[in-house]
Amino acid sequence: MSTLTGVGVSPGVGVGPAHVLAYEATVPAPGSRHGGEAGDAAAELALAGRALERVAADLEERGARAGGEAREILEAQAMMARDPGLADGVATLVEAGTAAARAVYEAFGHYRDLLAAAGGYLGERVADLDDVRDRAIAVIEGRPAPGPPEDTGQPYVLVARDLAPADTALLSPDVVAAFVTEQGGPTSHTAILARAMGVPAVVACPGATSIAPGTPVLVDGASGLVRPAPSDDEVLGARNAAAAREAVLASATGPGTTADGHAVPLLANIGGPRDVAAALEYGAEGIGLYRTEFLFLDRAEAPSAAEQEAAYLEVLDAFPGGRVIVRTLDAGADKPLAFLPPGAHEPNPALGERGVRLFRTHPEIMDTQLAALAAAAARSAGRLQVMAPMVATAEEAAWFADACDAAGLPSAGVMVEIPSAALRASDLAVRAGFLSIGTNDLAQYALAADRQLGALTGLQDAWQPALLDLVALAAAGAAERGRQCGACGEAAADPALACVLVGLGVTSLSMSAPALPAVRAALSRHTRQQCHLAAAAARAAVSPADARAEARAHLPGLAGLAL
Amino acid sequence: MSTLTGVGVSPGVGVGPAHVLAYEATVPAPGSRHGGEAGDAAAELALAGRALERVAADLEERGARAGGEAREILEAQAMMARDPGLADGVATLVEAGTAAARAVYEAFGHYRDLLAAAGGYLGERVADLDDVRDRAIAVIEGRPAPGPPEDTGQPYVLVARDLAPADTALLSPDVVAAFVTEQGGPTSHTAILARAMGVPAVVACPGATSIAPGTPVLVDGASGLVRPAPSDDEVLGARNAAAAREAVLASATGPGTTADGHAVPLLANIGGPRDVAAALEYGAEGIGLYRTEFLFLDRAEAPSAAEQEAAYLEVLDAFPGGRVIVRTLDAGADKPLAFLPPGAHEPNPALGERGVRLFRTHPEIMDTQLAALAAAAARSAGRLQVMAPMVATAEEAAWFADACDAAGLPSAGVMVEIPSAALRASDLAVRAGFLSIGTNDLAQYALAADRQLGALTGLQDAWQPALLDLVALAAAGAAERGRQCGACGEAAADPALACVLVGLGVTSLSMSAPALPAVRAALSRHTRQQCHLAAAAARAAVSPADARAEARAHLPGLAGLAL
Repeated sequence: MSTLTGVGVSPGVGVGPAHVLAYEATVPAPGSRHGGEAGDAAAELALAGRALERVAADLEERGARAGGEAREILEAQAMMARDPGLADGVATLVEAGTAAARAVYEAFGHYRDLLAAAGGYLGERVADLDDVRDRAIAVIEGRPAPGPPEDTGQPYVLVARDLAPADTALLSPDVVAAFVTEQGGPTSHTAILARAMGVPAVVACPGATSIAPGTPVLVDGASGLVRPAPSDDEVLGARNAAAAREAVLASATGPGTTADGHAVPLLANIGGPRDVAAALEYGAEGIGLYRTEFLFLDRAEAPSAAEQEAAYLEVLDAFPGGRVIVRTLDAGADKPLAFLPPGAHEPNPALGERGVRLFRTHPEIMDTQLAALAAAAARSAGRLQVMAPMVATAEEAAWFADACDAAGLPSAGVMVEIPSAALRASDLAVRAGFLSIGTNDLAQYALAADRQLGALTGLQDAWQPALLDLVALAAAGAAERGRQCGACGEAAADPALACVLVGLGVTSLSMSAPALPAVRAALSRHTRQQCHLAAAAARAAVSPADARAEARAHLPGLAGLAL
Repeated sequence: MSTLTGVGVSPGVGVGPAHVLAYEATVPAPGSRHGGEAGDAAAELALAGRALERVAADLEERGARAGGEAREILEAQAMMARDPGLADGVATLVEAGTAAARAVYEAFGHYRDLLAAAGGYLGERVADLDDVRDRAIAVIEGRPAPGPPEDTGQPYVLVARDLAPADTALLSPDVVAAFVTEQGGPTSHTAILARAMGVPAVVACPGATSIAPGTPVLVDGASGLVRPAPSDDEVLGARNAAAAREAVLASATGPGTTADGHAVPLLANIGGPRDVAAALEYGAEGIGLYRTEFLFLDRAEAPSAAEQEAAYLEVLDAFPGGRVIVRTLDAGADKPLAFLPPGAHEPNPALGERGVRLFRTHPEIMDTQLAALAAAAARSAGRLQVMAPMVATAEEAAWFADACDAAGLPSAGVMVEIPSAALRASDLAVRAGFLSIGTNDLAQYALAADRQLGALTGLQDAWQPALLDLVALAAAGAAERGRQCGACGEAAADPALACVLVGLGVTSLSMSAPALPAVRAALSRHTRQQCHLAAAAARAAVSPADARAEARAHLPGLAGLAL
C-alpha cells in the first residue's frame, strides 16, 4: 500500500500497528419481540435495566479516570443512561412485547427526538445520547462496546473515519502513537485534542480506513504523510528529523520576540485550571484565552460565585507577572446549558443566539461571572483581562464594557470572530479595551464553511486571503484607537502563519501550549520587517496555497527549523 | 390596549378583526392504550389510517387550489402522510396496545429522527412532517386542524407567534387584511410571501398575540405600527396616506434612473415562470434573480433537460429586450434534493455543502442545467446571464466560468453572498463576468446571525454598517475589473437603501415585483451625487439606526413619497 497524504494537524512522528475503528452501531430489527408471556417481559426488562446501569457505571468509572472536562462529559452521559423517563419508556415498550434491545433503541429515539426538537441539541447532545444507546445495545447483545481499546500492550495508530471527543478522552500517549482520520479538519476536536495530548495526528486523509488492521504505520504529523509498512530506514529518518526539530525548538526560550527585538507575547489557550501545568511547561507568558465553559456545561444548576472565583483565582495565581485573558461563557444551542430554558429551535446553532447574545436575555449569568472574576482579581497579583465572545457590533461591545465597568473590572475586551467585528474593529475599539481574533470562527463565518465539515476543509484554511484581509482590518482598527489586538485561534499555532499575523499587525499570539516552542523559534528567526513582507505577499495572493508559498519565501528561517 | 410596534416588512394599510393563531399541538399522553382486545386494535388502526388518508387528501386538495410552488410543498407533505413505512410503524404500535393518536405520534417520532439524522433536514422537512403529524392527531381526536381559517367572511388580521410557509400558502388578500407576527425578520418567509401577495405585514412585534381575538386592528406595513381598536379617524388617516403614496408611486414609470439620468436597471426576483406576470405588471426591465429550485425540490428524479429548457425559455421570451439572470440550483442540507444521496449530517446547513459546493461533487446536475440554459438561450431573443450561488473563492468562480464556457454560455457571473466573496471581489471578477450581491445571506454570514431567527433581527438589519462596507468592497472590486455588480437581496426593495446601494456603486437592483414602483420613484427623485453622499453618511455611522437616519438626511425626496 502506498503512502497516504492528509493534513498534519499535530506535529511529531508516531509508529505503531494500525487499529482501524470500523464500529458500526447495530439497529435492532423493527418489531423484534420477546415471547409475550409476563415472565418473558420481566426477564427482558431486567436485561435492559442491567445493561443501562452497567453502561452508566462504566461511563462514571471512565470519567473518574479521565478527570477534568472529560469527566463532566462522561458523567452527563451516565445521567442519560439512568434517566427515569427513559426507563419508563423502555418498560412500556417491553411490557407491550418489544424485545429489550429494540425497546432501548426506540425509547432513546423518543428522547433523542425531544432533545433535538427542544433546543437544537443535534450537534452535541444527540451524539452523546447515541453513544449511550449503542453501548447499552452492545451490552444487551453481548457484543463489545464501541470505541477504541484503552490498552493493547503497545501504542497503536488509531485510524477511523472520524472520532468523537468521547472516543479520545480516555486515551493518552502511552496508548496511542498517532491519530489518522479520513474526515475532520485542522480545527476539529480530534486535532485540538491531539495537540493538547502531544500526540501526532493527520486528518482529512482519504483511504486511511482501508489500511489493514495490524499493519505497522508511520505517521508524520508535521508533513501529513501516513506510510503503511515503512522500512526501518524510513522510520529512523522520520524520527531523526523530528528529534532534530525538537532540539532546535528547545534552544529558543524566553519571551516571544522577533529577531530585531519586537516583543510578541506568547500566551496559551486553556480550558480550565488543569491546563495550567502544560502552559507553564511550554513557557507561556500568560493565558490568552481561558475558556470558562467547563464551569457551566452539563450541570443542573449554574456554578456559584464562590466556585467560579476559585477556578479563576487558581489560574491568575499561576501567572503573577503575566496577563490572564478570561473569555466569558460562550454557550448557545451548540453548547446548551442544562439550567437555562431552551430558546427557539435553532436550525443553525453556529449562527444562533450564542455567546454575548445569550447574555442579553440572561444577564444574571454574566453578572455573576463578572462579579466572581472581579473578586478573584482583587485577591491575586495576576493581571486579569475579560473578553466577550460572539460580538458582532459596536453596540454589543459597549454593552459588555458597561457591564464590566459596573462589576469593577478594569480591562474589558471583545473577541473578533465575526466578519462584521473585523470590518468595524475601529468602532468596537472605542469601548472595547482590547481585541482578540478567533481565527477558527472568523474563517467559518467569512467563508460560510462549517468548521465541523471535513468536506469544506479547503475553505476553512486559515491562509485564505479573505481571512488575512479581515485580520489586517481588525488589527488596523484596534491600532487606530491605540488598542492591542491579539490572535487566539488555531492559526496562531502555525509558525509561518504566526509570523504573517505579526506582519498583519497582531500584537500577541495565543495557542495550545505544545505549539508554543515552534512559534517562539519561528519568530526569533525573523525580523518584524520580514513578517510585514510575508504578510503583504500572502495578501497579494489569490489562493491559500499561493498565500502560504509567497509568505514562506519571505521567511527563510522556517527552513532551518524544518517547519 | 396601546399601539404596538414591530418591523414593517410589506407596505400598505390593512384593517380587520384580529384572528390570533394560538394553536398548540397536542402530545397524546405517553403510554396511552386502547382496550387491548384484537377488536380494539383493529378499530384503532382503522381510525389512524383514515386520519392519515384524510390529511393526505386535504393537503393535495389545498395544493391543487394554491398551485405553483405551494402545490409542490403540499404534495410532498401528502406523500409523507401516505408513507408505507410510517403506516407499518403505526400498525406495530397499535397492535402492541398503543392508542391511535399516540401511535401516530410515536411513529412520526421515528421517522422524524431518521430524517434529522440522515441529512440535516431539521430546518425544512421536519417542520413539514410535524405539521402532517399534528393534523393527523387533530383528526383522530376530533379537533379542528391547525392553521389559519381560509374564509371568515371578512378579511382578518392574522396574528401569530410565527407562521410557516404552509400556513400562509393558501391565503390571499381576499382572506387576510394583514399579517402580524411576534417573531420573524425582514427576510423571513412571512415577509417575503406577504410582499409577493401584496398584503401588509409587520414582523418582530412583541405582545401581538395578547391582542384579544376579534378586536379590530389597524396595521401599517410601512411604519410597522399595529393599532388595536383604532378610531375611524385613525383608519381614514392611514388609508389616505397609503392612497396618496400609491398615487405618487404610480406616477413614476419607465426604466430606472436617477434624477440626473444615471441608468439603474430595475429587475425582478422570481421563483418560476408563474411570477413573470407580476414582474411585467410592475414594470421590471428584466429578471435579476431567477431562482431555479422549483424545478428540483420535492421530486423523486432530477428534471430532464427538455423540462428545464421549457421553463427557462418561457421567462426569456417574456423579456425580449431585457436581461434574464438565472441562478443555478441552490440546494443543500437546508433545501435537500430527493434524488441526491444525503451527504454527511450537517449541524449547520447554512454553513454546509450547498450551492456551487454541491456541484463540485455532483457536476452532472450542473452540466445538465447549463446545457438546458444554453439551448433555451439559442431559441430566444432574451439575453440570458447565468450565475452561481454560494461562491466563496476566486477558484470556485473560475471553476464555474469554465463550466459555462464549456456549455457555450457567454455570460457567467457569481453571487456575492459570502463575506470572502465581497472582500475578494476583484479576484473573483477576473473570471466572473458580473457580480450580484445577495444581501440577505451576506448579512447572515457577515453578522453570523441566522436569518430564520427572530431574536436576531437587529443583527440582520441591512443597514448594518459592516454590511454596507462589504457592498462597497464588492462594487469596487467589480469596477476594478470593468464588471457590473447588481444587488438582488431584499435590501434593494427598501427605497432609501436602494439609493444607498446605488451610491455604494451597485449598478442594477432586483427585488420582489411589488417593491419596484417605490424604488423607481425614490431613484427618480435623487441625483447620483445625493446617493453617493447618502452612502458615505451611512457608512460613517456606527449603528443601523444611525446609518438609516444619516442616509435619509441626504435623500429629501423620500419624504415627498411618504416613504
